[in-house]
Amino acid sequence: MTNSLGFLLAARRCEIDELDQLARTSELVSTIGRLVHALQRERGLSNVFLGSGGRRYAAERQAQVAESLQREAQVRAALDPLVNDPRRLAGGARLFPRVAYALQGLDALPALRQRVQSLALSPEMAMAAFVRLLSALLAVVFEAADGATDPDISRWLVALFNFMQGKEFAGQERAFGVAAFLRGGNDDVQRQHWLHLIESQERCFRVFRDFSNEALRARWHAGASAVQLAELERLRRIGCTSPAGTVLDANLGPQWFEACTQRIDAMQAVEDALAEELRALCGRKVAQARAELQRDEALKMGNSVQSGHFFAEAPSAEPAALPGTGYGRQLEHSVLQLVQEQSQRLQAMNDELQQVRATLNERKVVERAKGLLMAHRHLSEEEAHKMLRQTAMNQNRRLVDVAESVLAMADFLPRGAPH
Amino acid sequence: MTNSLGFLLAARRCEIDELDQLARTSELVSTIGRLVHALQRERGLSNVFLGSGGRRYAAERQAQVAESLQREAQVRAALDPLVNDPRRLAGGARLFPRVAYALQGLDALPALRQRVQSLALSPEMAMAAFVRLLSALLAVVFEAADGATDPDISRWLVALFNFMQGKEFAGQERAFGVAAFLRGGNDDVQRQHWLHLIESQERCFRVFRDFSNEALRARWHAGASAVQLAELERLRRIGCTSPAGTVLDANLGPQWFEACTQRIDAMQAVEDALAEELRALCGRKVAQARAELQRDEALKMGNSVQSGHFFAEAPSAEPAALPGTGYGRQLEHSVLQLVQEQSQRLQAMNDELQQVRATLNERKVVERAKGLLMAHRHLSEEEAHKMLRQTAMNQNRRLVDVAESVLAMADFLPRGAPH
Repeated sequence: MTNSLGFLLAARRCEIDELDQLARTSELVSTIGRLVHALQRERGLSNVFLGSGGRRYAAERQAQVAESLQREAQVRAALDPLVNDPRRLAGGARLFPRVAYALQGLDALPALRQRVQSLALSPEMAMAAFVRLLSALLAVVFEAADGATDPDISRWLVALFNFMQGKEFAGQERAFGVAAFLRGGNDDVQRQHWLHLIESQERCFRVFRDFSNEALRARWHAGASAVQLAELERLRRIGCTSPAGTVLDANLGPQWFEACTQRIDAMQAVEDALAEELRALCGRKVAQARAELQRDEALKMGNSVQSGHFFAEAPSAEPAALPGTGYGRQLEHSVLQLVQEQSQRLQAMNDELQQVRATLNERKVVERAKGLLMAHRHLSEEEAHKMLRQTAMNQNRRLVDVAESVLAMADFLPRGAPH
Repeated sequence: MTNSLGFLLAARRCEIDELDQLARTSELVSTIGRLVHALQRERGLSNVFLGSGGRRYAAERQAQVAESLQREAQVRAALDPLVNDPRRLAGGARLFPRVAYALQGLDALPALRQRVQSLALSPEMAMAAFVRLLSALLAVVFEAADGATDPDISRWLVALFNFMQGKEFAGQERAFGVAAFLRGGNDDVQRQHWLHLIESQERCFRVFRDFSNEALRARWHAGASAVQLAELERLRRIGCTSPAGTVLDANLGPQWFEACTQRIDAMQAVEDALAEELRALCGRKVAQARAELQRDEALKMGNSVQSGHFFAEAPSAEPAALPGTGYGRQLEHSVLQLVQEQSQRLQAMNDELQQVRATLNERKVVERAKGLLMAHRHLSEEEAHKMLRQTAMNQNRRLVDVAESVLAMADFLPRGAPH
């Protein structure tokens, strides 16, 4: 008596486990997305509050802190059970250190708020602190996308991560712009950073569009009215691209904040739809895997299982396709065919998964090359990025290829003096 | 109260789970290796038996069948408990379909042996059947190596897989050569296939050498005496590279079989040492992870846990390195530092894992490109391989790069008439 069918069933059960875990991870990611949104808004309001010496948005900031606390409580409630039941999610060995790091940031948040409240921080310092926390939260999402084992779900997680990351750059632009208007001007480095934030958003949203579907792309385009976009671009022109030395009108600060907030809130609606799409996909996948398991279990009950012709004398390179219609017929098919079908499906899934992950890996490679340039040549992040991009344009190569060359030549890079 | 340390501990527990699973997978792989060895020998003996019309090696073959059955029983005993407890191994969703397929082959083996016994098969047909079964068993090993999540263990699994695959090509060469000597000659296609088997072995053993250590490389070189190798090369020259039309002496068949068998048995000793190395490595890794868990748990008990400075105003790009000496000092360190240390370690592991897997992926890409050429241009496997290799040499590019180009241009390939 063979266990072959038993292993086919065991494989399906493992697959269902993985899909259940991915569904839970996807839920967690969308809960984190809500907290990220609240903290982004709190960051913007804190910046106006600090930049205006505590005169503007004091009440709005207080209300937003309450909102952030509520979202944080939801994230913690989703996380807490995992400590004692880590197998509820996949890839805990890699995901949980990211979670631990993000929780460190959330733990330090009350003290940060205290310092904002007492005006003990510059807008820039508050900005840097919030960026650090939000990047720790987004790192959890990145790890979730990178660890996914189903290519379709991975694809949506990559879309979601890039959307969230693009939205984060938009949030940084909001806070950065507010500080600039309230400060009354920009120097060259600041203008360059602003342009970097605009460009980074576009890069992320491009990936979102590539990995998303038509409905969501349409929703994304419908999200911002032409009037709103025109206002945003007008303020960008004034704040970011006017010549050095231009004095900015501080009253445009709140106006800028509102224009950005409208856009970012519209993004949140798209993000919610994306998360909903992901949730539905996980549900469909789990249901389909369960149906397949049931079908195969029925096969085990039946007596019509043939052992197949493993050593068929003229084996075709590709096993015959299974008839897709009706199941009565299928019962007559051999376990061998089922096994071959399953193997082919897994191979195709694996190929697709690698393609999807390559997109995430490209980002990793570019980030690492930037980090290397920053450390070795004392560049800011945007200077490093600009250097990579300029080289790519000059050499007519892709950004990721230039980044790979930089990493490959790491040993030849001049070592800057230590900080 | 934060759960940050709790997640760090949960991550370590997940890691220990994964390492335990990998240790079991490695055990399974080495058990499969013993069965592969027995079946390879049975294949060779069956070929002499069939090629000599049942006169030679009848008793030896019977004894070897008994040995194969015993090894098969050991593999089944290792596999059976997994059907009801699939989580004992990692990546069951991908591993178990391969297992199911290999079991199909083992189930069909008694009928195959019957046909060998009654001389109802040509040596070529028996050869093809055994190759099919052995490749199904090696596919389990490949999947185990591809699914490993620890870079050090993955590296050894890749070394082991390539060694086993190289040994399998050596086994095919043994059986193929026996058939040639007993048949009394080779045509062009057969000679080309023989050369292909030699070249394929060398490719695999090159990867083994790259991913192995000095001790094993030394053992590998010591395994074959110069006298044995000279005899093997002499028989290769006679059997494989003599001009078309040469009549081969059938009496050289058993001589060839013995020369190959000595070499392959020496390989088995290296394979055992490799498996032992892997076993020891898994043991060390698990012990180390447990010690780290214990250390972190002690930290939780102590009261010296500081929350760290998440929003330190001048955050360095790289978190400060932890002092490596003594643990009394470490207790005073913050959870934040532990978390950062863990994150850095995971990042480094992930980078390394991707490099190791790339080797396996290169093999996949080359195999897929070969398959494409075989289907589209009606080439044999070795013709397809030769075409890829020739192109790589002409264009001064790596084989894998040419293979990738072939896959990228799949749509432009001429479609051959259907078989």
